[in-house]
Amino acid sequence: MLLQRLSLCRLVTCILSVSLARANGNSFAHRGELRQAKRIVVKLGSAVVTRGDECGLALGRLASVVEQVAMLQNQGREMMIVTSGAVAFGKQRLRHEILLSQSVRQALHSGQNQLKDMSVPVLEARACAAAGQSGLMALYEAMFTQYSTCTAQVLVTNLDFHDDQKRQNLNSTLQELLRMNIVPIINTNDAVVPPPEPNSDLQGVNVISIKDNDSLAARLAVEMKADLLIALSDVEGLYDSPPESDDAKLIDIFYPGDQQSITYGTKSRVGLGGMEAKVKAALWALQGGTSVVIANGTHPKVTGHVITDIVEGKKVGTFFSEVKPAGPTVEQQTEMARNSGRTLAALHPDQRGVIICHLADLLVEKKEEILAANKTDMDLAANAGQLSSALLNRLSLSPAKLNSLAIGLRQIAVASQDSVGRVLRRTRVAHNLELEQITVPIGVLLVIFEARPDCLPQVSALAIASGNALLAKGGKEAANTNRVLHELTQEALDIHGVKEAVQLVSTREEVEDLCRLDKMIDLIIPRGSSELVRNIQRAAKSIPVLGHSEGICHIYVDSEAAIDKVIKIVRDSKCDYPAACNAMETLLVHRDILRTTLFDQIIDMLRTERVKIHAGPRFASYLTFSPSEVKSLRTEYGDLECCIEVVDSMQEAIDHIHRYGSSHTDVIVTENEDTAEQFLQQLDSACVFWNASSRFADGYRFGLGAEVGISTARIHARGPVGLEGLLTTKWVLRGDGHTAADFSEHGTLKYLHENLPVTQPQPRQMTSSN
Amino acid sequence: MLLQRLSLCRLVTCILSVSLARANGNSFAHRGELRQAKRIVVKLGSAVVTRGDECGLALGRLASVVEQVAMLQNQGREMMIVTSGAVAFGKQRLRHEILLSQSVRQALHSGQNQLKDMSVPVLEARACAAAGQSGLMALYEAMFTQYSTCTAQVLVTNLDFHDDQKRQNLNSTLQELLRMNIVPIINTNDAVVPPPEPNSDLQGVNVISIKDNDSLAARLAVEMKADLLIALSDVEGLYDSPPESDDAKLIDIFYPGDQQSITYGTKSRVGLGGMEAKVKAALWALQGGTSVVIANGTHPKVTGHVITDIVEGKKVGTFFSEVKPAGPTVEQQTEMARNSGRTLAALHPDQRGVIICHLADLLVEKKEEILAANKTDMDLAANAGQLSSALLNRLSLSPAKLNSLAIGLRQIAVASQDSVGRVLRRTRVAHNLELEQITVPIGVLLVIFEARPDCLPQVSALAIASGNALLAKGGKEAANTNRVLHELTQEALDIHGVKEAVQLVSTREEVEDLCRLDKMIDLIIPRGSSELVRNIQRAAKSIPVLGHSEGICHIYVDSEAAIDKVIKIVRDSKCDYPAACNAMETLLVHRDILRTTLFDQIIDMLRTERVKIHAGPRFASYLTFSPSEVKSLRTEYGDLECCIEVVDSMQEAIDHIHRYGSSHTDVIVTENEDTAEQFLQQLDSACVFWNASSRFADGYRFGLGAEVGISTARIHARGPVGLEGLLTTKWVLRGDGHTAADFSEHGTLKYLHENLPVTQPQPRQMTSSN
Repeated sequence: MLLQRLSLCRLVTCILSVSLARANGNSFAHRGELRQAKRIVVKLGSAVVTRGDECGLALGRLASVVEQVAMLQNQGREMMIVTSGAVAFGKQRLRHEILLSQSVRQALHSGQNQLKDMSVPVLEARACAAAGQSGLMALYEAMFTQYSTCTAQVLVTNLDFHDDQKRQNLNSTLQELLRMNIVPIINTNDAVVPPPEPNSDLQGVNVISIKDNDSLAARLAVEMKADLLIALSDVEGLYDSPPESDDAKLIDIFYPGDQQSITYGTKSRVGLGGMEAKVKAALWALQGGTSVVIANGTHPKVTGHVITDIVEGKKVGTFFSEVKPAGPTVEQQTEMARNSGRTLAALHPDQRGVIICHLADLLVEKKEEILAANKTDMDLAANAGQLSSALLNRLSLSPAKLNSLAIGLRQIAVASQDSVGRVLRRTRVAHNLELEQITVPIGVLLVIFEARPDCLPQVSALAIASGNALLAKGGKEAANTNRVLHELTQEALDIHGVKEAVQLVSTREEVEDLCRLDKMIDLIIPRGSSELVRNIQRAAKSIPVLGHSEGICHIYVDSEAAIDKVIKIVRDSKCDYPAACNAMETLLVHRDILRTTLFDQIIDMLRTERVKIHAGPRFASYLTFSPSEVKSLRTEYGDLECCIEVVDSMQEAIDHIHRYGSSHTDVIVTENEDTAEQFLQQLDSACVFWNASSRFADGYRFGLGAEVGISTARIHARGPVGLEGLLTTKWVLRGDGHTAADFSEHGTLKYLHENLPVTQPQPRQMTSSN
Repeated sequence: MLLQRLSLCRLVTCILSVSLARANGNSFAHRGELRQAKRIVVKLGSAVVTRGDECGLALGRLASVVEQVAMLQNQGREMMIVTSGAVAFGKQRLRHEILLSQSVRQALHSGQNQLKDMSVPVLEARACAAAGQSGLMALYEAMFTQYSTCTAQVLVTNLDFHDDQKRQNLNSTLQELLRMNIVPIINTNDAVVPPPEPNSDLQGVNVISIKDNDSLAARLAVEMKADLLIALSDVEGLYDSPPESDDAKLIDIFYPGDQQSITYGTKSRVGLGGMEAKVKAALWALQGGTSVVIANGTHPKVTGHVITDIVEGKKVGTFFSEVKPAGPTVEQQTEMARNSGRTLAALHPDQRGVIICHLADLLVEKKEEILAANKTDMDLAANAGQLSSALLNRLSLSPAKLNSLAIGLRQIAVASQDSVGRVLRRTRVAHNLELEQITVPIGVLLVIFEARPDCLPQVSALAIASGNALLAKGGKEAANTNRVLHELTQEALDIHGVKEAVQLVSTREEVEDLCRLDKMIDLIIPRGSSELVRNIQRAAKSIPVLGHSEGICHIYVDSEAAIDKVIKIVRDSKCDYPAACNAMETLLVHRDILRTTLFDQIIDMLRTERVKIHAGPRFASYLTFSPSEVKSLRTEYGDLECCIEVVDSMQEAIDHIHRYGSSHTDVIVTENEDTAEQFLQQLDSACVFWNASSRFADGYRFGLGAEVGISTARIHARGPVGLEGLLTTKWVLRGDGHTAADFSEHGTLKYLHENLPVTQPQPRQMTSSN
C-alpha cells in the first residue's frame, strides 16, 4: 500500500523529468553517447556491497550507490539494480544468533582463541542468503526512501529465463515497475537454486547461464533492452595482461574482435574465472544491444561518483563497444609520438629546420585547401550560432594570416638551430673522464588550445624545433581546419620519416582524461584563457603544467613619477588589450600625488577610456564620494576595469604587491633611480619593470623569438618562455673503465673537476614584428 | 530484548579491545595526544546529516560516519553521537503525506509552478522532528547493526541539565550504556521544548544553554567527562577573519586567549551566530576538560575518514587547546622565513658568504656543545633500542665529521658568490629599453631529512648561498642535535639580521601536513631514502618536489666490451654502495658474450661479492639451471641483488632500458666508439655513461660543488643538482615611458632585440674530496 502510494507520488515527479531519447537498439559507439542511456542496469558485485572482512555490508559504498542511482532515476532514467550482499547480510545475522545462543558465561571465561573460533561459525551460503534477503531489501528501501524513490524486490532463478512464459512474466512485471518509476532490485533466489556447477554453459558467448550476478545482469539487461549495463566490482576494468605483470595496461575501450589480444591471468583473483566470466557476460550483453562498462566500485576516491561519471561519458573502467573507431586510441597515439619523437630528437638540427620550413611552405601552397576547411568550420559555427564574434574572429583564417604564420614558422626554424644538443657545461672529472651537460627535449608535450587553428602549426613547429613529441588537442569548433593543418604537418615531418611525432588528439577526448595520462606525457602547455589554464592545472595532478594561472599586475605610481610617462604607461597597461594576462589590474598611487593635477589627469584618462574604477579600502577612505569598493584586492578583472589603492611609500607598494599580487608582472613609474632599483631588486615577481608598460611581458616583445607561453610557476621557466622552456638537460660521461672506488680514500685517483671551454653559442639576432 | 542480547554480545567483543589510558581530566595539549582519547562525542550538524536541498538525509555521509564511529568503538573507545537530522527526516515524510493527500489528478493537470508550490508545504520544525525521530533512529540502528554495534536513543531537554537529579539520572543512564558497549545517540527532545529564544544565556562562556546541538554536545561532553568532542558541520573550521575575505586563514590550533584576534563575519552563514556560538560551546567544553575539534564533515574527499583522521592527530579543522606551545606555528614560521628570506636575498653575495663561513667556524668552535647534544640523542636512541647500527652510525657526530662539515660549508660559501643576481641575458629591446634576465632565489624551501643531523648545516648553507628561505624538518631521533645546530645557524644569520630565514620545524609536525602548505612553500626537497622521497611526492600535490623517485640503473655490456673494464665497472656499480639510487639494478649482456670467459668472470665476481642474481625471462631460457626468475624487470633492489637479462643488440638494450628503466643513470661498456656514441645519443636518461661506473651520478663527483640532490624529474633540474637547482630567474625591464602601442603597426618605434654582452662568470675551480 505504501509502495503504491509512493509510486504515485513518483509519477508526479516523473512528469518534470527530462524525457531522454531511447537508443535505437544498438549499443553505443562512444563513451560520450552514454549520456543518452535511458534504461540502465547497475550490477553491484559482492566486493562492492560487502566489507573486506566479508562479515557485513559496506554501508558507505552502498549508500553512495543508492545516492547516484536515485539521482539518475530522478533525471528520468529507468534504473535497475542487480545486487549481491544477501549472503553477507545473512552471515552477519546468523553469526550473531549462533554467538548469542552459546553461553555468555562460557564465552567470558574462555581465552581469546576459543572466542575466535566461536566467531567464525561455518554457514551455508544459500541459508545465509535466505536469512539476509529481507534485511538487505529493508536497507535498500530505507535508503531509497531518502531520495523519494520507491523500490521493489525481484528474485529470479535460472528457470525464469529458460522458460519463455516465465521470462515474459518477469519482463512484464519489470516493465510495469519501471513504468511506475520504481527501481527494481534484483537478486538470485539463492534459496531455491542448486549450488553452482563449475564450467557449465561457458563454452560459447551465446549461451549464458545465471550462475553469478554478472551473467544475471547481462541476461536481464538484454531481456529488458537496457541501454547500459554498469558492472561494479573491485577491479579497475579489463587489463591487456594480468594486472600484476610489468606492462599491464587498463583497456579503455574493448572491442569483441580484440579478445585474442588479452592474456588472462591464471591464478590471480582477477584472472581467469573472475575476469574472463565478466568479459563473456559483457560481450553477451553487447551482442544483445546493451553497452557495458566494467569498473571499480570500491575505490574510496571515486566510489561517490563512479556511476554518474560513467553515465557522463568519463573514462572510467573499461567500456565495451562494437564499433571500433578508425584511428588509434590516445594512449597508442602517445606511444607512437614518443617513439617517433625519439627519432626526431636524434635528427640533425638542420633537418628539423627543413621540416619546419617545409611546413611553412605548405601553409602558403595549400592555402585553398586550408581556407576551404576553415570555411566549413566557420559555417558550422555560424549555423550553431553559439560563438561570439570575438570567437568567430579567432576561428577564421585568411591568406594574410597564413602568410604571417609562415613567416613566424621560418623564425622558429632559425631558432631551432641551437636548441637541442647544445653543450652547456664541460668538466674534466679526471684524466680520460669527461662530463658534458647537453640540452635535450623534455619528451612528450601535450598542448591544449581553444578555437584558434593557427595555434596548431605554431605549437607543432615549436615541438619540432625542440625535438619534442607532441599531442595537440584543438577546439571542436576548428576540427576541420585542424585536420588539414595536421595533415600538412605530417607531410612535412615525413621528409625525415618522423610523421608520427606530432599527433592530433580527437576532439572527443576529454581534457580531464588527457591530464591523467601521467608517465606518458611529460609536460602540459595550455594555450588560451586563464580559465583554461586554471582548469588544466587543477586536472593535471602529476604532470607539470607550463602556464600562467593568474595575472594580477600592478602599476605603482611613485611620488616622483613623470606625469606624461604615468599617463602613457597606465593607459597602455590597462587599455591596449584588457583581457591579456599582462594587463594592469591594480593601480597603486603614492599618497602624495592624491589631490594633484597628475592624479586628476590619470582619472580623466581612465574615464575617457571608459575604464570602470573600483576603490581599494584606503583610497575609498580618502574620498567623499567613492566609486564602488573592491570586493577583493586580489581580483583579475580582465576587462576595462581596475582597482585603485593608495600607499604611503614604495615599500608599502611592494608589501601590497607581495600580499595581493600573483608574481606575474609589476611596474614602477618614477624618475628616482634609487627608488626604481630598490623596487626592481626587492619585488619578487617574474617580470619587474621600470617606466615601461606591463604589456611588454611577452616572448615576442622580449625578443625570445618563438613564444611557448608565459609561466607563473617558480621552477623550470618563469615569465615569458622561449624555446628553452621545452628543453631539459642530460649528463654525458665518457670514461675509460673508471670506478668511484678509484677515487676513494684508498683509491689511486684524485678528482680534477677542471672546467673545459664550451663553444658559446652566439645569441641570435631576431627581428620580431609583434 | 534484542538490544539487551546484542549488548551482551558486544561485551564479549569488548574484552578483546585495547584498554586505552583515560585522560587525567585535563584537555589534550597537542593533536598527537588525541590518539589516547577514550571517550569521544561526535556531533553531527544538520549540514552533515542532511542533503543540500534540505529534504532528506545525506545517506552516504551518514553511513561513513557510522562506519568510522563503529570502527573506533570496536577499538575499545566509548563513542557517543549527538545528531541532527530528525527535522529533515520528518519533513521528508510529512511532505510525502501532504502531497499524497492532495488529488493526484489535480497534480497531473497542474502546471509546473503549482506543483512546485505544492512540493514545499510549510512545516513546523518541532512537528517534523517528532515525525522524523523514529525513522532516523531506525536508520542509525540498521547501519550500526552492520558493524555489530548496538545503539540506544536518548532524547534530552534543557531541564535535564538544569535539574541536578535529572542530570544525574541522565549521567548514570549514559554511563550504563557505555559500560554495555552501546553507542548512545542523543538528540534534543524537540517535541517538548519551547522554540528557541535568541540571545538568551549567551552572555558568558560559563553559562551555556541547550539551544542548539553544539551546546548540547559541549554540555554532554563535559557532563560525561569525554576526552574529545568532534563537532562536524559544513565549515572547515575557525578562520581568523571572515572566510570570504582576502586573507582569511584557517586556524589550526585555537587557544582561549586568542579569542580577541578573531574577526567574525557579520552576515555570512558561518559568521556571527553560527561560528561564534560554535566557538563558545567549544571553549565551554575545553574549560570542562574536553578537547574539541571543529571540522568539515561534508567535504566529499575527506568525509570517509574525517573522524578517524582527527583521532589519529592529523591536521583537520581547528583544534582547541588550553596549552599554548611556546613557539610559533609552522604557518607563522613559514611567514617569518619568507620575510626574512627576502632580506637575505637582497644581501650582497659576500654577506651571504660571511654568514656561511661564520656557521662553519661555529661548528668547530662550539663542537663540545654540539657533541653533548648529539650524545643525548645517541643515548636516547640506544635506550629506545629501536635504531639499527646503520642508523646509529648516521645519527652520530664526531669532531672529524664536524671538521669536514665545516670544510664543505666553506666550499658552499665560495659557490654562493655567483649564484643570486647573475645576469643570464641582456637585450636592448629598443633605444632606452633594456631587458635583463637575472637569477633569483626560488623562495621558500622545505627540506625534509631523516636521522642524519649533519644534513641541517648543509641544507642551511645551501639555502643561504642561494638566498632562499628554509624550513628544515629533521628526524625525531636527532632532535637535540638539530636544535643546537639550528641555534648556531641562527647565530650566524643574525650577523646580517636575517635570523629567521632558516626555521627548524618541530618534530611534532607531520610531513603530510607540511606537504599541504601550498602557496606558502615553493619547493620541497626530501633528502633521504627513496621511500621518503616517494612518500613526499605522493603527499605533495601542488608543490614541486625535487628528488629521485626511483633509480633502476642499467649496465649494458656490449659484445665489444673490454673484460677488465666490465668487471671493474659492474663491481663498482653494484657493490660500492648497493642502497644508493645510482647503484646498478639490472645487468644487460649482449647475447654474444654468453658462454664466454668474460661472462663467467662476471658471474664469478658477483658470486665472490655475494650478489644475489635474478634471471630475466630471456636469460633464464638460455640456462639449464637458472637462478630465480625476476618478478618484475622494473625492480629497484637497493641491496646486493641484481637482475641479469640478455639482449641481441645495443638497440635492444636501449629499448629495454626505455621500457623498464627509470631514466636515472644507465651505462654502456664497449670499446666501439660508434656504438657508444649512439647509445649516449639515443638513450633518454638523466645520466648516460660510457665505460664508467653508474656511481659517478652524484653532484660532488660531477664537480657541482654543493649537491642539492639527484632529480629524476624532467623539468627544472635533471640528474645531480647543484646550487643552480635552487635558483629561478626574473626579468628586469628598464624603460623611459615605453608602451606596447609605440611598437604597433601605427606606432613610431621598432623592436631592436639586440643581444648585449653578459659578463660571463668564470667557471669555478673546485676540488672535491668525495
